[in-house]
Amino acid sequence: MKRIVLALCLSLFMAASAVAGELFQYSTIDALLAGLYDGRLTVGELLERGGFGLGTLNGLDGELVVLDGKAYHVKAGGEATVLKDNALVPFAAVTDFSEDSIASLDDIPDIKALNAAVGKHLSSGNFFHAIRIDGRFEMLKTRAIPAQTPPYRPLAEVVKEQVIVKLTSTEGTLVGIWTPGYMKGVSVPGFHWHFLSKDGTTGGHVLDVSFKGLVARVDTMRDFSMRLPEALGTLDLGADRKEELEKVEMNPAE
Amino acid sequence: MKRIVLALCLSLFMAASAVAGELFQYSTIDALLAGLYDGRLTVGELLERGGFGLGTLNGLDGELVVLDGKAYHVKAGGEATVLKDNALVPFAAVTDFSEDSIASLDDIPDIKALNAAVGKHLSSGNFFHAIRIDGRFEMLKTRAIPAQTPPYRPLAEVVKEQVIVKLTSTEGTLVGIWTPGYMKGVSVPGFHWHFLSKDGTTGGHVLDVSFKGLVARVDTMRDFSMRLPEALGTLDLGADRKEELEKVEMNPAE
Repeated sequence: MKRIVLALCLSLFMAASAVAGELFQYSTIDALLAGLYDGRLTVGELLERGGFGLGTLNGLDGELVVLDGKAYHVKAGGEATVLKDNALVPFAAVTDFSEDSIASLDDIPDIKALNAAVGKHLSSGNFFHAIRIDGRFEMLKTRAIPAQTPPYRPLAEVVKEQVIVKLTSTEGTLVGIWTPGYMKGVSVPGFHWHFLSKDGTTGGHVLDVSFKGLVARVDTMRDFSMRLPEALGTLDLGADRKEELEKVEMNPAE
Repeated sequence: MKRIVLALCLSLFMAASAVAGELFQYSTIDALLAGLYDGRLTVGELLERGGFGLGTLNGLDGELVVLDGKAYHVKAGGEATVLKDNALVPFAAVTDFSEDSIASLDDIPDIKALNAAVGKHLSSGNFFHAIRIDGRFEMLKTRAIPAQTPPYRPLAEVVKEQVIVKLTSTEGTLVGIWTPGYMKGVSVPGFHWHFLSKDGTTGGHVLDVSFKGLVARVDTMRDFSMRLPEALGTLDLGADRKEELEKVEMNPAE
């Protein structure tokens, strides 16, 4: 009897902390674009909702990569370290990765080719997806934004200070999220890729990538959950930020 | 010990089924506008996520009002009945209502005045809110859409068949949801009101209302959770449906 009760407790606890097939997001992309760079969600709380994902740190201090249940901080310049549970995030999206399908990717010369190839293997563009690609990458162009100090300027301005790092023949993992277009204003529509090297020492927001013969593992998600930071209550979100978002997420060279 | 374990189980179970301050939504408003009128969520499952809210039934058969933990079906013509747990919904939004603030509303001549008055008492337009107004309403203009049969036409066409009912001096409850503008495409931005009479026999989607001297109880929500129906995967959501949404939600006389 006691064992049954405990098993029940455990399954209920797992349901409470992370929902299978759910993408959890803290804050909105428009809030980040508007300069809400300080959140109140801890890395510990974030990891309870999922061990795979991406985001940034308070003060817009670099890039966040969540992989295999650990959260990594990639600073401007590309150096990565494991974050403490009490570190704070202003924006992040995580899930408990669970493979639903796989896709073999032969020759990927750039990020556009990657998005086109993986795009064909999504169960539906209307659903959320997490994508994981492990292996050796011929070329990677990552960026990380240096920490900001208040008063914060909008992200489209701050992103000009991003530090770009080029990596060659690097082993590691691409951590990707696909978000449907109807989520515009809330999340980053389309693909969003972060990278972490296998030794956990470097990574960042992926601007470009090339590789040959790797497998993409795809997790389809039909549940989406979002927590809004209290500071969003007094934020002027202003108008449509589509153009600003494109400036921020894409390769500045394009 | 046993009692502690059981208490722990209970609190974990409650966390798993309904999150305090969370709005749960099934499907998206754009999916409904595109004609996805058949969902797979049961009323029983919906009520586990919240006992206060609104929506519609499979086949777009009238309007759904969720109040005090019960789900009511308002058919075209205005007749309301309590739904069985196995009834299915294609779109709904519910929460466990918890009063955070109140607002005294003196003289409300129409729905525009209602929205303006309640709008001043929201904690922030960037957060989700549930609003509950109990009392006697001088005038109510409600609508309900008659059940459709496949192949379904888009909602903007179907809504022309809506049956409007005028009620005078009726006791009951306005069930309202405020959704921030950045949720466009996912939810109905702004206010969305349904009504249920005190005796539970009539109600509907509110097109217009007038009353004097009632209190609005407001619940601020910073957590949003959404489940997408499987059929959304093959739906062509098409372009921006802002104009269609306005046709569907507003008073046709305006």
